Amino acid sequence: MDIASNNDALGLLTDLYELTMLQAYWHESMNETATFSLFFREMPLQRNFMLACGQEYAARLVRQLHFPAEQVDRLKALDLFQDAFLEWLQDFHFQGDIHCLPEGTPVFPHEPIMEITAPLMEAQLLESLLMNLVHLETVLASKAVRMVLAAGDRPVVDFGMRRMHGSDAALRGVRAYRAAGLAGTSNVLGGLQHDLPLRGTMAHAYIQAHDDELAAFRAYSRLYPGTTLLVDTYDSRGGVDKVIRLARDEGLDIGAIRLDSGNLAKQALDARRQLDAAGLESIRILVSGGLDEYRISRLLAEGAPIDGFGVGTSMGAASDAPTLDLAYKLTEYAGRPRLKNSPGKQLFPGLKQVWRQRDAQGRYQQDRITARDEQGEGQPLLQPVIRAGAPCREAPDLSVTRRQVATHLEKLPEPLLSLTPSECYPVQFSERLKALRESVLQELPDN
Amino acid sequence: MDIASNNDALGLLTDLYELTMLQAYWHESMNETATFSLFFREMPLQRNFMLACGQEYAARLVRQLHFPAEQVDRLKALDLFQDAFLEWLQDFHFQGDIHCLPEGTPVFPHEPIMEITAPLMEAQLLESLLMNLVHLETVLASKAVRMVLAAGDRPVVDFGMRRMHGSDAALRGVRAYRAAGLAGTSNVLGGLQHDLPLRGTMAHAYIQAHDDELAAFRAYSRLYPGTTLLVDTYDSRGGVDKVIRLARDEGLDIGAIRLDSGNLAKQALDARRQLDAAGLESIRILVSGGLDEYRISRLLAEGAPIDGFGVGTSMGAASDAPTLDLAYKLTEYAGRPRLKNSPGKQLFPGLKQVWRQRDAQGRYQQDRITARDEQGEGQPLLQPVIRAGAPCREAPDLSVTRRQVATHLEKLPEPLLSLTPSECYPVQFSERLKALRESVLQELPDN
Repeated sequence: MDIASNNDALGLLTDLYELTMLQAYWHESMNETATFSLFFREMPLQRNFMLACGQEYAARLVRQLHFPAEQVDRLKALDLFQDAFLEWLQDFHFQGDIHCLPEGTPVFPHEPIMEITAPLMEAQLLESLLMNLVHLETVLASKAVRMVLAAGDRPVVDFGMRRMHGSDAALRGVRAYRAAGLAGTSNVLGGLQHDLPLRGTMAHAYIQAHDDELAAFRAYSRLYPGTTLLVDTYDSRGGVDKVIRLARDEGLDIGAIRLDSGNLAKQALDARRQLDAAGLESIRILVSGGLDEYRISRLLAEGAPIDGFGVGTSMGAASDAPTLDLAYKLTEYAGRPRLKNSPGKQLFPGLKQVWRQRDAQGRYQQDRITARDEQGEGQPLLQPVIRAGAPCREAPDLSVTRRQVATHLEKLPEPLLSLTPSECYPVQFSERLKALRESVLQELPDN
Repeated sequence: MDIASNNDALGLLTDLYELTMLQAYWHESMNETATFSLFFREMPLQRNFMLACGQEYAARLVRQLHFPAEQVDRLKALDLFQDAFLEWLQDFHFQGDIHCLPEGTPVFPHEPIMEITAPLMEAQLLESLLMNLVHLETVLASKAVRMVLAAGDRPVVDFGMRRMHGSDAALRGVRAYRAAGLAGTSNVLGGLQHDLPLRGTMAHAYIQAHDDELAAFRAYSRLYPGTTLLVDTYDSRGGVDKVIRLARDEGLDIGAIRLDSGNLAKQALDARRQLDAAGLESIRILVSGGLDEYRISRLLAEGAPIDGFGVGTSMGAASDAPTLDLAYKLTEYAGRPRLKNSPGKQLFPGLKQVWRQRDAQGRYQQDRITARDEQGEGQPLLQPVIRAGAPCREAPDLSVTRRQVATHLEKLPEPLLSLTPSECYPVQFSERLKALRESVLQELPDN
């Protein structure tokens, strides 16, 4: 259900042109070393930074890319491919190198998230798959971290599975959420796969199926001590009264109430007063229902006594910026730097490195993109992950990634942490790269 | 990779509260017949209608929902569930009834897309999974059909796999695209699975990897007679000159050129003139690159001589309306209609039917939502698909669905086919439903 299951067909999860180009390269005996760079050109208007996510997972998944006979037969039936090429495909396994930003790295336009260096055919073949993989997690992690920023020290839990785009998004989304710092997820399989704590309360249907809300609350809190009760099926004030009766008078262990609709700030304030007046200061108040980072931020700014947030729809599809203009561009082939002629677009040829410079307080100050073998200042971000087809770095431990994201959030310039658009983080290109670009542009076949 | 692969874990692709509610129902011996309704409350601002899609697929997939021992063991490890309940879960298979709108039906707020009638525990368990399934295809089909409307008789091809949200979205998205009327897809596995023709051209990288654009074009069109050549890697006018040289002077069979960036209208006009002047009227012009329904519509309104469109990003994530506020609500339990008290929300209890009425010209005029056993005027839309756990209707044939969508587009009121917001299509509730709602509201436990 996620992209790694049934991976016999993984090779066919690609765009047709990758395979037709491959056959053309094969036909023309063009298979010298190529480098492709995966990056995006423009920051979505609603983001100040993106969290690069999924690239180390993707780099490892590439090793599972293969074309078993039954899949090759499906291609054969298309009448597009020659037997000798299909034999090459059936023998395919990736033998190249992959450099990646560590997962969870804040990333800006033009910075390579991955660079793939391999025989041309191998490197070309990865394009559509790598883009799909990195796009999803990067888009979702970059949205989720905004919820974390808005909620401050209150936990944010993912309730979004039902409106995420299919099962793979729902499962790998939880991976991105764990990296981004969410406290838990309602998604059982996602949480189990990626070790994010499972959280859940009850649906309105549970209350409605009972003839009596009190009986429903009683049954649920007896079965699940410390549980959260959804109090707004009929009237949240009446719901809270019942919670008080059960917790104070009957001694049941109720951990929290949840409000899911209406004026959440007012209801939370009223509920807090009711609970406190009954001596139930320990019962927490959770809210959900159409939340996004702006609503979370407003609720807290209004002083609403809210202890945690359940967020679904807006985060699950990253509704305000559901896509990123990721590109996978050939930057070098057969020892020669390559470039598409795109007037106005800042494309640079050749293998690269990204250097992150800090100020005296340790805050990120600016990035500089250099040629790969150029010495820069600060910390070089791209790391080798796959060498000659084999991993050369431990698989990312999501708990480490999560801590690193928290550290990055402390070190990003303050304005970038705002929910509203800030000035761009400075990213510069080295003089050597600029000179290389000019010389390649001069030599472009059609200039 | 799509939701149906590795379906041993399908049961765990759910929200935790479904399972905790189930155990509570089990504990309370609450398992009488329940009906849940799957519908949405509000039309996204950017849509005049939605195409309901995925519901018949989902209804059939429910029959594969099961909990093998190794999955139950994962739940056991959570320390939330009792052994006797887990035994019930291990024996689970769906035995209820499901009514659906036929796939591809234009649907409006409050109209049930599915109604599930089953023992409460079975019906509750389906919530998160059905929502995830129907949400994805409905959101994607409803966006894709707008491309088809904008492009008129020109073919629209899906190029979106790389920026769709994961593999399941990319694969089932092609299913939705086929229903919506797209002409083809670049997505190999998606196209093979859902029988949509595969289309593809070449990437800029193919041209860049060659030292000479002409050599690249020549090699590709020799290998793939009738192919499409991407002419804008360096300069589209120069690219078209080379196409002319190959097609006219060397007699190669070139089917089309593709323009992927810059001013597409101007470049298309220039290219058309160049090609026509060379007597190459038969070479078509395809465009791609950041297209959506509005740009397609503008290009055609400007008279750009374009023969087909490749659309990716905006369609692949339905960027302007990537989510729908689908809800799965309990409307009847143990013979009693049920309702959540939601002031201002038009929720209605009980089993329902949707009747679509036509005017004298056969155009859809209005819909009326009635009680299920009420006689209405026009055509009843909800059909039984699963009875007592078994299919009672043939699986949807996507070629039929596609034809039905085309017919629906002819019969929808003209203003709804506009890309800009039109007046709402009229949907009324029967007097009997209104009376039922009032009586249930009067009897709500907490009123």
